[in-house]
Formats: sequence, C-alpha cells, structure tokens
Amino acid sequence: MIERIIQEPFSIWTQGSGEFPEIVLSSRIRLARNLKMFPFPSKQTESTANAVLERMEKVVSRNKNFKFYRLAELPQLQRQVLVEKHLISPEHGKDPENRGLIINADGSVSIMVNEEDHLRIQCFASGLELEKLAELANQIDNKIEEKIDYAFDEKYGFLTTCPTNLGTGMRVSVMMHLPGLVLTQQAGRVLHQLSQIGIAVRGLYGEGTEAWGNLFQISNQISLGQSEKEILANINSVARKLISQEEAARNYLKENAGLQIADKANRALGILTHAKVISSQEALSLISDLRLGKTLGMIEGYSLKLINELLLLCQPSYLQVLAKKEMGPENRDLKRAEMIKEKLKQ
Amino acid sequence: MIERIIQEPFSIWTQGSGEFPEIVLSSRIRLARNLKMFPFPSKQTESTANAVLERMEKVVSRNKNFKFYRLAELPQLQRQVLVEKHLISPEHGKDPENRGLIINADGSVSIMVNEEDHLRIQCFASGLELEKLAELANQIDNKIEEKIDYAFDEKYGFLTTCPTNLGTGMRVSVMMHLPGLVLTQQAGRVLHQLSQIGIAVRGLYGEGTEAWGNLFQISNQISLGQSEKEILANINSVARKLISQEEAARNYLKENAGLQIADKANRALGILTHAKVISSQEALSLISDLRLGKTLGMIEGYSLKLINELLLLCQPSYLQVLAKKEMGPENRDLKRAEMIKEKLKQ
Repeated sequence: MIERIIQEPFSIWTQGSGEFPEIVLSSRIRLARNLKMFPFPSKQTESTANAVLERMEKVVSRNKNFKFYRLAELPQLQRQVLVEKHLISPEHGKDPENRGLIINADGSVSIMVNEEDHLRIQCFASGLELEKLAELANQIDNKIEEKIDYAFDEKYGFLTTCPTNLGTGMRVSVMMHLPGLVLTQQAGRVLHQLSQIGIAVRGLYGEGTEAWGNLFQISNQISLGQSEKEILANINSVARKLISQEEAARNYLKENAGLQIADKANRALGILTHAKVISSQEALSLISDLRLGKTLGMIEGYSLKLINELLLLCQPSYLQVLAKKEMGPENRDLKRAEMIKEKLKQ
Repeated sequence: MIERIIQEPFSIWTQGSGEFPEIVLSSRIRLARNLKMFPFPSKQTESTANAVLERMEKVVSRNKNFKFYRLAELPQLQRQVLVEKHLISPEHGKDPENRGLIINADGSVSIMVNEEDHLRIQCFASGLELEKLAELANQIDNKIEEKIDYAFDEKYGFLTTCPTNLGTGMRVSVMMHLPGLVLTQQAGRVLHQLSQIGIAVRGLYGEGTEAWGNLFQISNQISLGQSEKEILANINSVARKLISQEEAARNYLKENAGLQIADKANRALGILTHAKVISSQEALSLISDLRLGKTLGMIEGYSLKLINELLLLCQPSYLQVLAKKEMGPENRDLKRAEMIKEKLKQ
C-alpha cells in the first residue's frame, strides 16, 4: 500500500479539488495524542517505545483500510518521500528507530507513532475543507479511543510532550499559494500580522522555506484555551480572509499588469518545457508563475492538478524514487528538468 | 523591386550559406567613388546634387538588373528597413534629400548615391566569400566606369570626401557571430588586438551595439597605402583567424560546459517560443544563445537561415512593415514576441 503512495505522482495536496483549489492546495488537521500508562516519547526506553508500537499495530490490525509500518523497515529514500508528500514530519523520517506509521490507501489519513507524542493523527484534504476534515479526524480519534485510553486531564485536556499542544491537541493548517500577495508586495505585512494573532506561517517545508514557490502554510500556534470548534472557526476565517485578499491581488494584477503576468507565466512554461538543468528552487518559482497564469486564464491547457504535481517533481527524494536510482544534486537537476518536460508533454 | 526586398523576411546576410555560415553571417565590399567634374557631396548645392542623381539614373536606366530610387520618394519606415537590412547607411536613411539608391533584385548589390561620396558601391554575400565578392565589385565598378569618369589621382588613388577612404576606396567587412569568444571571455582581448592592427570592430548596427547578440563586424580602417588585393588578403586572414579561434572556443565550451550551453540554448528557445513581450536587445541575446546551440548540435530542428531571419524580426522598422502599421516601443515588444513565436512554429 505504501509503495503506491510513494511511487504515484500525486498526493492529497496536489489534486486541485475541494474549495478554492486555485489558492488552497490542501487542509490538514493534526491531533496530538498520548497513551495513558505509557511513558511519553521523550522518556521512552526501547522496550516502552516498542510496547506502544505493538499496541498500535494491534489496534489497526483488523482494519482493512489502514496499514501499520515500522519506519525503520522502510528505506531512507522512501521515508524522505513520505516527508516530501507531507505524510510524516522531517524528524519522523530522519530518525526512524522505534517509530511507526499508520496510513490509509489514499494518504488522506496518516498517524505518526512515537513522534513527539505517541500519536500524531493527521487528516488531509484537497482545497479548503475544514469541516469535512474535522469530521474525519473526530471519527478516527474516536475509533482509536474505543481501543486505548488517552492521557487526558480535566484541566489541561489532552496531555502532550510540548505544552503548546495541550488542550485540544489540535493543529489545523492550510497550505496556500499566494503569488498575488507576493507580487503586490503585501505578503510580508499580511503574514506578519497573522503571527501577531496566534497564527503561525511557514513555507512548504517548514521554517526557512517561506519564499519557495510562494507557498505558505498557516496554522494555529497553540491548541490550549480554545475549543476545537473555535480553532477551526478561527483558521477558517483567517484562510477565507487570505483567499479574498489573494483574489483581490490577482484581479489587480490581471487588470493592471496583465501582459507582464501573462508574459511571466508563459516564459515560465517555456523554460520548464525546454531547460536541460533545473534546480528545485528555480523550478518551484517557475511553477508558481505558471500556476498564477493558469488561474488567471493566461495559460492554455495543463490542469491545475498537473501543475500541482510538478511541485512534487521538484522534490529530491521523490525524483530519485521515480528515477529508480540515487543521484547527487547535479544529476537531480538534470533528471528534474527531464521529468518536468515529460510531464508537461502530457 | 524594392518593395520585395523590404517586405521579404530575408536578406543576403541571413541566408546561412557560403563559407563558414555558422560563424560568418555575411561579407561586404564597399567602394567609395566620386564623379569627376561634380562637386563632392559635402559641397553640393541642390542642383549639382540633382545632376549626380540624374546622371546615375541614366547610367542604370538600360540595365534590367538594377533599379534607381530617389530616397526622398520612399516612406521613412521603408528607408529604415533598408538600414536594418544593411543596404544603406543610417545617415543615408535619415536624411534622404537629394540622395539615391541603386539596387538589384536580391539586394546583393546596393549603390548609395550622394551619401558621403557620390557613390558607395556595396556588394554583399552570405558567409565568407571575399574572392567572389571582389569579382562582383570589380565588375560593377568597371561597368559604371564605362559610362562615367571617376575622380582619380595618380598619387592618392580614388578621391573621396574623407581621407580614410582615399586610395582604393575599398572597405571590406565581415559580419561574424562570436558567442564562443564572448562566453570564454576572450572577445575583449582578441577584438582589442585587432584595433591595433588597423581593423575596426563594430556591432551589428555600428558603434555602441557591440554587445548585441554577440554579432561583430570587422573591417579595414583605412584604404590608402594598400592595394585592393592586400586589403582583401588581410581581412580574409583576420577573419579566418577569428573563425578558428571561435571554433576552438565553441569546441571548448561543448566539451567543458556542454550541458550548460545546451541548457542556455534550449531555455532561449523556450522563452522565444513562449514570451508575450520581448525587447529587441533581449531577443538578440536569446537568438545568439539559440544560434550557438544550433551550431553545436544541441537544438533539434530550425535551420540556420530561420534563426538568422529572427535577427531581422528584432528590428523595429522591419517589424512595423510586417505588421503593416506604425507602433510604439511597447506594441513593438508585443508584436516582436508574436512574430518570433510564429516564425519558430514553421
């Protein structure tokens, strides 16, 4: 099952479906949970860690929709692809000892076992779909709770390793493409304001990758002191505000700099279909230009889904999995150009 | 006849034929001649200028291969295209009063009347073809001399307005594409050395345009004190030296930076086939990259002739003639992108 998820050229966040797919790539709800009576991961020995893994393996063993994996049994390149597809955290992929993964067939649910907490239940949806996602997350959460006891406190809610996750243990995040705000030079101000109202803003692959492809991930910074509903409503309203600002920026650009934007988008397409060598960062930036042009009706052909999938081809590990061999950075730049070209021929 | 020369998308220097077409676009021989018994152009009155025009009109009147035009009777845009196609000098096009042009059907011979001298006989050939060209120039020169007397002095040779043209009155020039020397950073040194041995180096459109598209025109600085044969042999040997240096540079690049050069050339093709707006200078630079890639076998399809013809599409007046309307710089950049794209579809 996991081989398919790793090999196939898509992920929940590249589907280009759901609400506002032109701006929102995907939504995610993550619940931090710990098992009662087991030491937290930061205090685990090998045997208590293993006990958690065995427990969880048993929990999912009778459910056909889910499969349990010990991360240490997956090759490093495959673990890296799981990181690139946002199914596990970089830390989870980097240090696989005593860690596990529970995943369903389409990758819409992925549960990291023995990450920072015993369980990090993650649910993904394409586009802005927080309500559906909350239902799904609740359902999974309840199913697990039927079989195990969570560490829970009346006052602090779900107990977690890091205090920022106490309370609901819930983090809601939305991955957005905001080239309009960047090109109209509003992104810095708008995103800074968010950080002042408890919203974290990160790049596609966490901190330090903000500028890559104009892709931003917004999420609630803390999960304590607010109900799940409040967190969801808050992120939903912030996301909708950003969507309308981004839409306004795109319309402004279309009206006031339409030719330049069309030129930029079409040149990006020209380079992506002709380059012989391309770095991951340059590719992301060109894909962003192409994606903006596509949503403004300035690019003929090419579905949003296909353009989103190009984002995956920028990723070093996924590229190596597709190429079926390990490659250094130079060969990756060569292979990336080749694969992007091939994909755009479709 | 001239309408065809102006309208058609080629010129002698874009044909991509003759010797060393991958490096040499064209060769030109220009003879400066003045009519005996007529004041030189710098001393002309309207009536003496007119007398020269009438004289020359009569000289060619019975020759079916040539046609005589009074420049003032051609629209400014058409005169500019003649400049862009290198058939007349910028000065000749700018100030058409009392000036004339004698031209043959394929534009391989063009005689400016009442430019700096009474006659500037110009013969053009594609590639490096100095011997054939010298024969042609001689033939034309003799034919004219059968009918009129040239101003000639035993000691100074042909008398000309500017002393640098005394003697043979001959200037031989070769237009070369030297991206290899530019990319290997030898161009500055090599071309500077030429200026020290009496060779002038100019850009595609004279001084100040040196860097445009890596196109350089070399020619003898003076025509006095050397026989025609010596001038020809000198330019021939300088051109051949440059050709072998350029070939060595291209081979070096192919072996040591083949991937980067192929990438550069293919990206240029990608941009040229996709841009919505393109300036003349950017287009020249991209065409240069494409041309280099083509000659190194890194570009599939597209003949050298077609690539050379793109150089003409960069030219503002020719562009307007093709578009059949006058356009400002912004619309030209738009039209240029459109025309280049269309041409590359062929």
